[in-house]
Order: sequence, then C-alpha cells, then structure tokens
Amino acid sequence: MSKLKVGIVGGSGYAGGEFLRLALGHPNLEVTQVTSERNAGDPITFVHPNLRGRTNLKFRRMADLEPVDVLVLALPHGNAAKRFSQFAGLADTIIDLSADFRIKDLDLYKKYYDEDHPAPDLIDQWVYGNPELHREELKGAKRIACAGCFATSAILALYPLLKLGVPQPKDIIVTGLVGSSAAGASATDASHHPERDNSYRVYSATGHRHYAELHQELPGNFPIHLTAIAGPHVRGILTTAQLWIPDGYSERDVWGAFREVYGSEPFIRIVKVRKGIHRYPDPKLVSGTNYCDIGFEIDQDSGRVVVMSAIDNLVKGTAGHAIQSLNIAQGWEETLGLEFAGLHP
Amino acid sequence: MSKLKVGIVGGSGYAGGEFLRLALGHPNLEVTQVTSERNAGDPITFVHPNLRGRTNLKFRRMADLEPVDVLVLALPHGNAAKRFSQFAGLADTIIDLSADFRIKDLDLYKKYYDEDHPAPDLIDQWVYGNPELHREELKGAKRIACAGCFATSAILALYPLLKLGVPQPKDIIVTGLVGSSAAGASATDASHHPERDNSYRVYSATGHRHYAELHQELPGNFPIHLTAIAGPHVRGILTTAQLWIPDGYSERDVWGAFREVYGSEPFIRIVKVRKGIHRYPDPKLVSGTNYCDIGFEIDQDSGRVVVMSAIDNLVKGTAGHAIQSLNIAQGWEETLGLEFAGLHP
Amino acid sequence: MSKLKVGIVGGSGYAGGEFLRLALGHPNLEVTQVTSERNAGDPITFVHPNLRGRTNLKFRRMADLEPVDVLVLALPHGNAAKRFSQFAGLADTIIDLSADFRIKDLDLYKKYYDEDHPAPDLIDQWVYGNPELHREELKGAKRIACAGCFATSAILALYPLLKLGVPQPKDIIVTGLVGSSAAGASATDASHHPERDNSYRVYSATGHRHYAELHQELPGNFPIHLTAIAGPHVRGILTTAQLWIPDGYSERDVWGAFREVYGSEPFIRIVKVRKGIHRYPDPKLVSGTNYCDIGFEIDQDSGRVVVMSAIDNLVKGTAGHAIQSLNIAQGWEETLGLEFAGLHP
Amino acid sequence: MSKLKVGIVGGSGYAGGEFLRLALGHPNLEVTQVTSERNAGDPITFVHPNLRGRTNLKFRRMADLEPVDVLVLALPHGNAAKRFSQFAGLADTIIDLSADFRIKDLDLYKKYYDEDHPAPDLIDQWVYGNPELHREELKGAKRIACAGCFATSAILALYPLLKLGVPQPKDIIVTGLVGSSAAGASATDASHHPERDNSYRVYSATGHRHYAELHQELPGNFPIHLTAIAGPHVRGILTTAQLWIPDGYSERDVWGAFREVYGSEPFIRIVKVRKGIHRYPDPKLVSGTNYCDIGFEIDQDSGRVVVMSAIDNLVKGTAGHAIQSLNIAQGWEETLGLEFAGLHP
Repeated sequence: MSKLKVGIVGGSGYAGGEFLRLALGHPNLEVTQVTSERNAGDPITFVHPNLRGRTNLKFRRMADLEPVDVLVLALPHGNAAKRFSQFAGLADTIIDLSADFRIKDLDLYKKYYDEDHPAPDLIDQWVYGNPELHREELKGAKRIACAGCFATSAILALYPLLKLGVPQPKDIIVTGLVGSSAAGASATDASHHPERDNSYRVYSATGHRHYAELHQELPGNFPIHLTAIAGPHVRGILTTAQLWIPDGYSERDVWGAFREVYGSEPFIRIVKVRKGIHRYPDPKLVSGTNYCDIGFEIDQDSGRVVVMSAIDNLVKGTAGHAIQSLNIAQGWEETLGLEFAGLHP
Repeated sequence: MSKLKVGIVGGSGYAGGEFLRLALGHPNLEVTQVTSERNAGDPITFVHPNLRGRTNLKFRRMADLEPVDVLVLALPHGNAAKRFSQFAGLADTIIDLSADFRIKDLDLYKKYYDEDHPAPDLIDQWVYGNPELHREELKGAKRIACAGCFATSAILALYPLLKLGVPQPKDIIVTGLVGSSAAGASATDASHHPERDNSYRVYSATGHRHYAELHQELPGNFPIHLTAIAGPHVRGILTTAQLWIPDGYSERDVWGAFREVYGSEPFIRIVKVRKGIHRYPDPKLVSGTNYCDIGFEIDQDSGRVVVMSAIDNLVKGTAGHAIQSLNIAQGWEETLGLEFAGLHP
Repeated sequence: MSKLKVGIVGGSGYAGGEFLRLALGHPNLEVTQVTSERNAGDPITFVHPNLRGRTNLKFRRMADLEPVDVLVLALPHGNAAKRFSQFAGLADTIIDLSADFRIKDLDLYKKYYDEDHPAPDLIDQWVYGNPELHREELKGAKRIACAGCFATSAILALYPLLKLGVPQPKDIIVTGLVGSSAAGASATDASHHPERDNSYRVYSATGHRHYAELHQELPGNFPIHLTAIAGPHVRGILTTAQLWIPDGYSERDVWGAFREVYGSEPFIRIVKVRKGIHRYPDPKLVSGTNYCDIGFEIDQDSGRVVVMSAIDNLVKGTAGHAIQSLNIAQGWEETLGLEFAGLHP
Repeated sequence: MSKLKVGIVGGSGYAGGEFLRLALGHPNLEVTQVTSERNAGDPITFVHPNLRGRTNLKFRRMADLEPVDVLVLALPHGNAAKRFSQFAGLADTIIDLSADFRIKDLDLYKKYYDEDHPAPDLIDQWVYGNPELHREELKGAKRIACAGCFATSAILALYPLLKLGVPQPKDIIVTGLVGSSAAGASATDASHHPERDNSYRVYSATGHRHYAELHQELPGNFPIHLTAIAGPHVRGILTTAQLWIPDGYSERDVWGAFREVYGSEPFIRIVKVRKGIHRYPDPKLVSGTNYCDIGFEIDQDSGRVVVMSAIDNLVKGTAGHAIQSLNIAQGWEETLGLEFAGLHP
C-alpha cells in the first residue's frame, strides 16, 4: 500500500509536534508538509529537537500548502473554523485538534467559547474524535474533531457507570491535574519556569470550557462540576471523578461495568491493584503513550465511587487519539503508530 | 525573661526537625535535648544539615531525657499515648505532634486508627491544637494535641461557611494534593525518587484518617468526603473543597464570611486576585511559612463554591501551629518564631 | 525467522526492566523468562507497570531458569562472575549488564572494585559492549559485557579527538550529571524523594569506578579526571568534557573529527545549533531513546574544547546498547527495537 | 536608632524582590519605595505574592523616586551606569546589583560586556561587594557593586588555596550548575516550563561573563576556565572547581587552608562529612539563606582537589550579600536580616 500523504498546519506547537512524532513512526503515513508562520524556513528539528535524525522537513508557510491526503489542523482555537474554506480543498480527510468543531449545540458553544460559532453550517460534517464513544461513526470519517484533553480524561472516567445507567443521586465532582504542556508552546508569565516549577495553581475552579464536551457526550444529564489544577509536571492529566452507586451495588459490579464497556478497548487499561506502589492510574506511567489508565475505589459507607483516570494530554488527549481515530477511519489496525509502551521509572 | 527549655522526642523525623528549626529561631525557647534512637550520639546536623552553624546539640536516647519546661513528642502514631507515663513527669507542658490525642470520641478513633485508644483516660486533658478554632482553650493549655496536616488544610477551608451556618444541600467533596515530606523521613519503595518524581498517586481515594478530625471539628455534621493525592513536590498541601451556597448568596457574602471568621487571624491570608498569575493559594508560596492562604471561586449557575487552601504541611500543618499554639498557651505574641515570609520564586 | 528466546536474570531492577521493555518491542526477540527472587510469582507488571497490556509473564526464581537463546544478566555487580557456571549452560549468547566482565586488566579491576576478579579466566571471552568502538568484535559475539552508563557518555564524548590523535597538553576534566535511576531500584536514604528532589550531590568527586573503563578504552593514555554529580532528574546523563586542541586547529577541524568518527553511526547525533533553545545536547531530549547526542564549543583563546554528551543512562547507557550490541552480534539491522524517537516537550 | 529608608529601583525582578524580602525583615531598614515601570500602581504583592501581609507598598515609576538613605539598583545590566546621574542625588548609599561597576579594568569590561564602559570615571568609587574578600573596604562604603552570583560561588571556592599561594601547575576548571531564577523574571522561550523542566542546558560552555570577576578578584593569575549549565531547579548554584595541590600537601593542609581563610566567616560553612547523605555542599540546603557551603575532596594520585560550593544565587549570590555588605558598611551586626536557616527537607 502506498502511504497517505499528511500535512500538518500549525506544526510548531506541541499538539502539531506530537502528531508529527507519531506520524513519522506510522507505517501508513508520510508527512510531507508542516507549517509554521513563525518558523517558516527552519528545519522542523529546530523546534522539535527530538526528531533530529528522523526528518529533514522544513517548516513552510500556510500559504504554501499543497494538496495532501490527510490535513491535520493544529491551530489555536477559532482558526480552523474561520479559515476552513482554505483547508477544505486541500485534503480529502481533515483532522482538527482544536475545539472548533467538537460542540454540536451552538448555544453551548457560545456559552463556553464566548462567541457565535464561526461556521455553524459545517458542524454536522464532523465526528467527535473519541474512539471509545464514537468508533462506529469514525469508520470512514473524513472530518474528525478531536476531543479535548481534560474532557477525554473526564469522559473516559465517567462513561461506563453513566452509560450503564447507574443512577446518580448526588452531584458528580471532577478534579483534574494538568501538566504545563497543555497550555501550549508559547512562553507566558504563567509558564515561566521559576514561577511554575513546584507550583500548583487552580486555573479553572469553575467554568472550564471542556464542560461543554462532557455535557454533550455523557448520558444521563446529571449535574457534573469540573475543577482544573495546573501541576508542576509537563505531560499528563490525573483526573479524579466522584460518582455514586446505589445500595447493593458492589465493587464487583463496578468492575463488571468497566469490563463491559472497556473490555475490548486497545488503549484502556483498568488499573486497580491491592498492593505495591502502582495501585492506581498515574500519568507518569502513560507519558508518551496512547493509554488511558482507569481505576476506582469505593466508599461503601456513602456509596461514593472515586474513579481515577490518567492520560498523556498530548497523546491520548490530543495527537494519539487523532491517530487512533484516523486508523479507525481508514480501516487500519487501530494501534498502528501507537505502540510505545511508556517508561518506568 | 529566661527562656523555656525544650526537649524534642523523635527529633530525627521531619516533624521534629521542623519544630527544632523553628524553636532555634524563637526568642523565648531554648532547645536542650533532642532524641533519636537511631542517631543517638550523632550531631543533629548530621540529619538536619540546614541547621549547621545553628546548633551543636547531639541526639540522645529517649532513656536519657531530663526534665524540661516543654516536651515535644514527634513520634510515630501510637507512641505518645502508649508511653505517656514516661513523658508526663518530664515537663509541665507537653505538645504532641501525632494523632494520639486529637480525637475525643473513642469510637471514631477506633474506626480510623484500627485499635482501641491506648490511653482513653488521658484524652480530656488535651486541647486540639488548631489556633483558629481553639484559641481560647489554648490559653494556658499544658497538653496540646496538634492537628493533622491535611485535616488543617481542609478544616480551615471549610470552617467559615459551616461556622456561619450556610446550609449545605449537597455533599461536600474535599481533594488534597500532598507533598512527599508528609509521609515522613523513612525511605520506602513509594518514596524512592525514581518512582515518586513526576508522579501523582491517589493514595487515599476514600477513608482518609484525617476525616475523624473534620468530623469532630466542623459544625453542621454535613456529609464530607476526602480524597488525597500524593504529588511530586516535597512540601505543601493544596486543598480544594467543593461546598455550596444558597440562592441569593453572593460573592460578597462569601468574602464577608471569610473576613468575619478570619479577619484578625495572623496566619490566614485571603488570596483572591483578579489578574496575574498568583490569583489563588499556591503551596509553593507558603513553603517554610506558617501561613494558610485561602481563596474561593463561585459557580453562580449551581451555587457551588470552590474553596482553596494552601499550607506547608510541616509548618502550618505540624510544627508551625505547634509553635503558634505554644505562643498562645504561654501568653506570648502569637507570631513569635514564625516570621519567615516565604520565598519567591 | 523464528524469534530468539530471551531470559532476563534480575528483571525487577531498572536495567533488567528496561531491557525487557525494549525486547518486548523487538521483532526478533521473545522474552520467555524473567527472574526476581524478591518478586517471584508476581506479574512482571506489578514492578514495571508501564508494561501492563504488553506481557502476562510472571517473575520466577533464578533456580527455575530454563535454557534460552539469549540470557541477559542484570544483577548487582559481582554476581554475574561469581555465579557464571550456573548461567553458562543456559544460553548460547550471554549479555551482562554489570561491570563484571568489562575490565580486562586484573589490577585495574582490583583497584576500582576493591577485590580480586572472581573469574579471571573468563574475561577474555567477553567483548566490551560499546558498539561505536567495538562493532567489528561484536559481530558474532556470544559474550557481551555492556559498558557502564557514565563511562559510555564520557567515552563517546572523548573518543573522536583522542582517536584522531589530537594531542592533549593539559589534563582532561570530565564532569557528569547523573539521574537517580542510575543508582538502582532499591530505596535508600539517599534516594528518598524529600531528600533527593531539587538536590545536587557530588557523589563521586574523585575515584569514580567507571574511570577504569575510560582508561581501558580511550587511546593516548592522557590524564583524565572524573567528577560525578547526582542531579534531581530520573533518567539521563549530561557529560561535559574539557579537552584541548592545538593552535591552528579550528572549529571546522573539530566538526571534521566528529563527522569522520561518527558520521555513519545510527545512534550518535552531532548537536550544535547557532540559535534557539536547543543548541546543545540535553538528556531530556534523549530520554527513552538509544541516542547519544554530542556537541562541542571551542574557546579559541585557550584551545579548550568543551565536548558535551547526553544519553539516557538506562538505554544508551545500559539496555539500549545491549540491544544494539545484540543486533550487531546477530547480524540484524542495528536499529531494531530501538526506534523510539523521544518526546518533546 | 531610627531605621534607614530604602528605595529599590527595578523591584519587580527577582533580585529586587529578594532584596525587598530581606529588607522587610531587617530591623534597621524600612523600605519606602519600590519602582517598576511595568507594574507601577500595582501592589508589590501582585508580583511578589510571598510578601502578602508583610507590606502594603505599591510599585511606582522611577521618575517618581524621592530621596532615601539607601538606594538599591536592581536593573538590567547597563542601566545603573547609564542613568547614574539620576540616582546619585537620591541617596547617600547606593548598592548596585548589576554588573555595571564590578570590573575595574576597562578592557576586561569591554571584552566581556561587548561595549565600552558607559561611565568609566565612576568606577573607582565602587567597592566590589564580596564581604569575604573586601570586608575592610566595605566598612563605611557608600557605593557597593555586588558580586555576580556564579562569580561568587566560584571565587569563594577558589579563594583559600589561591590566597595562600598553593601553586597551580595545571589549569583550573570550574563547572557551575545554575537555577532558572538566575536568568531573571521575564518569560522567554528558554524559560518556558515545558522546555526547561527536567532539562540540562550548557548555556555557557566557554566565555562566561563572570570570568571577568574571577580574573580581577583571584590571586595568582592562573588559567581558569568556566563552564555553566542551566539545571532544572529554580534557586541555587552548585559549583565544582578542579584545583591542584603539590606533592606532600595533605587533606589536613587543605582543611587548614579553608579554616585559616574562612574560620571566622559568619556565612561560610565547611561541609565535609564522612557518612550519611549530606556529605558535601548542596544548593537545596542553602535555599533562601545567605550561606555559602564549601567542601572538598582530594585525589591523592594526581594532586587534584575538587572544591564544591553551594549558594542561593538570589541570596548569597545577589541580595543577601548586598545586605551583608550594607551591614558591614553601616557598622551593624553582619548577620542582621539574614537569619533564615534554610529548610530540610
């Protein structure tokens, strides 16, 4: 089979760079173009030094894009929608890593993104890029709007119990610990190393935008509340979700729920071990991988279930599930290009 | 005034070492004895190298303790109670940094500490060492049972709204991020640097022992749930508490509540800034200090209030509020020996 | 081709675990046995949680080893040599990750390892496992004694100029910054996270054992001095080597030397960029990979050349060059199983 | 005694902020003005949140400065000299934290700062602010040019043996590990947390500007070479200096040299312990303090002495020795305002 040609728009950021890393190791993909207005003319490895020896590509301007098979948009939010006509003619398959086409409900979009959707007519073309929830729709998809990183960690934690209709008598509280890479590649006061190192900042106590994705994707319409904290690490999200089980619902039942929903998922691992130091999901252990590790613990006194999930925000939260979604869309083995097992320690 | 003579039992651990550091800088205290069975005979600075040039004391054995004015017990949980008769004759004032005498309710103690209380007759002598809640009782106190570190961060976050009787229609969820120093000075597999660095572990999703302290200390008897996560930092706890306000209760009202309850507290700072990168409490900024920084954010749609608190677990969570409590007990200026402002960056 | 069966002795440590990770992803290898006395009976993933979903193997005792094609010894120094008769019958090819068979000179061994060599008759069977210096000898080799990690970073930095006979009028000073994983998987006071985090310790100002390897491997017999510092990171070594060039020797000449010696090496990248933030080797960028990045800077006033090298101590410093050496020994593509590009950021 | 009034010019940076922190805790100083063009009008605590509850001062513009007793210049290099006429009339005592007036030799200045000195006539008024080398000159000084941070760590390591005339037959190599705070408070690509975290960058392999200070301050005019590496920590410099002792010069002699030169220094601690994990200087242990810890190890085979020093670059490397120098200048107790012992762990 000849390889599909891939172009990456906005390839100097972390999302685009991560897609590039994964695509360079994918047997069915060939990256032929990567854009960066700021770094046009520079070798890609000037920005992504991990790829030294792996590619000789140079950044080009967006204006110089030529047709490819797959175009990946890794632009700041708003750009994919506003410039979509420019991109639509360039590729049969378009993958957007931004939030632009994730939300189907225009009011919900407006509430969380503070403006009217720039291209409402286009929204219906897009499949929400979460393979575990939308595998069937992704088959053959030509427009994939990849899920947000914190949204992915929260949705994958909450989905099994809600999908199986476990009633939620009390509000669901979700707390996420997010690494600094999630804020992007541009230096800011908040990301200045002397300030960020060793620091924890509650950057979104309430009102996190990814709530819109949870609202759209999760069954049951239960009250869910998000709090997001920026931690001192670079990659990874640890999410704890506080849910509820009814009287008589045992640990075995929760195990059963997770097995039923995720039993055949290639990138979800149920992590719940009785002893040792690796008893529950830890973002350190999925760094660089497409895994979402999920565990849970039950407080039988109150019926509270703490579901924990760990992902790498740039992989399973962004570029990895983009590749996974593309593999599904093309009918390829779902794990192609996503084989990295992660490091220990 | 002549200085009070201080002995520290269990001074090679982090809690004892921190009390020692603070006591060495306290104008009214003179540390004369520090015990460590393991390090007896070694200079104290062998274990606490920050104190080089500050003290020439050597560790001695517990068996060699001589009478002092103030005896500080920094022993593993259970030891203070079990060996109390040994300590009682040595000092007029005894401060215990362990959990042994914090809990007044014997059943509650048994549930969370998995054994009958070793010295139930002694419990009533002790004042719970949280200055903000027990200042009056601490005046003149001779037995101070210092509050737990995670408990302190949670109680100080929850106290104002609950004390003022703000009704809680929904369960309260508390999530704590705790540094590695909270687990003590003994090397374990879990604390091995290659494993712990860059790692987040939910070490107590449910059933945290400090719940007993919240149950005892907080008004209202509302359902409260704790989840504790070990983060990759050394010192500090960031706690987020999800509480609720009724319709019509404004941000101004919450400000008012915190001001009313904490307005004259020397070590509580309300941190809530509209701009910049230091908008809310961050444990980095209180490292080494006795401050508890507290902030909040309201989700008006749901009446959810996210209260955040940040402390240094070894200072405001352990040795610092021990000193603060002692200052109160002795009728001294409450901030004596606790003047360090903290570092930035 | 049928896969070679691999057994790993001492597989609960970091070196053995890293070999296991790489071997599981190697198309020509099948790991069939992994030993750990301490963890016998436990799933391998209990110790190496990154391998969840990749292997169902359980640890077995050394006494239960069965014959394989390749036996990898990842034991504390001294064990491979002392128990060699036990291992010799089990496999055609044996790879030792310890220091036991690296040093050919018995006096040198005794000086740096403080005992007579336990098996002097066996030393000549072994090839020193540094592919860049011993590629020809490694072809067909059945006994491979893999080079030490700090030694590898230092030797690869120093080799080109010394091999090409650039005279060294002054002593060569080598300083290494080594991550905590290099000290192994056993928890110690020195590796206790609260102590090690954020700390720099000169653990070997003089007398580093790996000097023996430099003495043996490097041409010219110039005075070389090593200082090793433990840094607050987990993986990686950054080495700076202070060498000298004669008058008239230009930057171009040094470029030429590195190109001549390493121009066709698959895992050495010369990193020397004029602008940007990634101008020189950084161990962060080779984490998890088999790369050794090498750069240099010249002080024309003094003829000093600072050569910098960066490796992952567990990969290019241990398990990675073991795999690379095995690939060479077997006549396979040298990069098999070593394709991971590393992460950014 | 009435307190001296202090103004800080450029108080939003890390050096100015650190001087402010120390001055606020100094019994003889009262900070009355702090300037920041960028933050004029903002409370100081907006930038330095550690000082919440310690000061209500707001930043003002430089143009609004009023006369004070002591003016501290914490401006980017070049500004103090270029604008000196503006500052000279404002205060009797002026302390400059920049490099502007450190170097007496105009050619040396030009070589390392790439321009002619902007105010050569003023240089002779200034005393180089290193208390250990210039205590006598500092007494009564009105113009103090504080030493550079890396220079301080290197000079204090090298000074004893060179001052005592120990001959240096071979070149001296100095390697420094410098934290991110040394690069200042402005966010840059190089300081972006995802890039800097866990990273080691040789930012000055050769040609470090602080060489000019070593050249000026150290006796003997021996060849000295500097290499500086940016480490993943925030505060602190660990310096290793490779010196030489003649045959017959014993460890006892080196001990004697350090004791002779530093025996009565209030802020230098000789750290050399035979056992335990804190055997040598570690910048972690002096964080926030004015200590310079110094240790050494001898390689008797070669006569090499590795001298190690650890300082906090913002304290003993900048604002701390500024306070110490001011204390000396004013005839006060040298340790006033510098009592913080540092933290462990």
